Amino acid sequence: MTELNRLSEYGVTDRAALDALLDSQWAGVLSTVADGRPLAVPMLYARDGDRLLLHGSTGAGALRAVAAGAQAVLTVFAIDALAVAPTTFESSVNYRSATIRGELTRVDDSALDVFSEAILPGRTAEVRASTRKELAASMALALPIGADNWLLKISGGWPATPEEAEADPDVWSGLVPVRTVLDPAVPAPWAEHLPVPPSVQRLT
Amino acid sequence: MTELNRLSEYGVTDRAALDALLDSQWAGVLSTVADGRPLAVPMLYARDGDRLLLHGSTGAGALRAVAAGAQAVLTVFAIDALAVAPTTFESSVNYRSATIRGELTRVDDSALDVFSEAILPGRTAEVRASTRKELAASMALALPIGADNWLLKISGGWPATPEEAEADPDVWSGLVPVRTVLDPAVPAPWAEHLPVPPSVQRLT
Repeated sequence: MTELNRLSEYGVTDRAALDALLDSQWAGVLSTVADGRPLAVPMLYARDGDRLLLHGSTGAGALRAVAAGAQAVLTVFAIDALAVAPTTFESSVNYRSATIRGELTRVDDSALDVFSEAILPGRTAEVRASTRKELAASMALALPIGADNWLLKISGGWPATPEEAEADPDVWSGLVPVRTVLDPAVPAPWAEHLPVPPSVQRLT
Repeated sequence: MTELNRLSEYGVTDRAALDALLDSQWAGVLSTVADGRPLAVPMLYARDGDRLLLHGSTGAGALRAVAAGAQAVLTVFAIDALAVAPTTFESSVNYRSATIRGELTRVDDSALDVFSEAILPGRTAEVRASTRKELAASMALALPIGADNWLLKISGGWPATPEEAEADPDVWSGLVPVRTVLDPAVPAPWAEHLPVPPSVQRLT
């Protein structure tokens, strides 16, 4: 990692970098306003080209508010490293974060398969199709990713140098990388005799 | 993990479970309302007993809004496993999520040391004290954890059985555990000759 330059950038406008962050995570926080008060709920999402799909129970309050047209912001972030500087003031984390703002629209039920495939590619072919009753109990919503309704911030690279931090040059500084890992699949007690399916094998 | 019972619970009122989630994460999403619109920003936080400390630049918009008394919600979540059910409809994630609601108050500068210690215990003793100029450039805010201003949701255990999901009993189901790991510390180029300090060693 010694080729890494010190780099602390904000307000990245690269759509590919936005997609990379969105595709690396499963969940974000959906924020909206109801009766003048902030309302927030963590949500699974899936990117489908130029839109983000969300789904949930039709009974959920925040989801009903945004389905009714309340403006929403979806926030997604990833922490890539703890950036330990030679001072506490300069210490921080290397992160990527995105906020996507807009109004959500209901989309037809076929979006649920797109959603499932984004989370666990290949799974829909391994299980039975959803029933009409199941589809009626969920609500699929889409938030468009447009030209100017999102903000991406990336903070990366090395922490401040001792000179920049006005610190003793003999104080250690560096990065502690943070990673999310998937452990081997654990079968449910009733599935122990069954082989792990290809969709799950590919994931882990 | 075979002793795990199927368990999908919501609305947990156990304060210790709330603290365990809060202490396991570094960052959450702070949501507020400005001019009637939702505003959201990912924030580092640290739990200090019955309060959550947040800090950031005095120039940040969302932070200024909540510092001025706008109601806020901090959302923290952790995904513990992908729960692969025998149908896509029943598939989900095992997660823990908390929302803490309230108004933030500014706290004095000593909170910054408490904040640093919560993220990287022992670090403040390894570096010089923050200068007055540094302290003036940051803003420390506290969100109280009271008796009734938070909501904790925990979803855990095995996914739905084939019977519950009305699915073929020969379809595999189970969990794919998700974990966050810290990799060994990487020194900055100017710190390669220095030993990794105890605070960082304890972390990794």
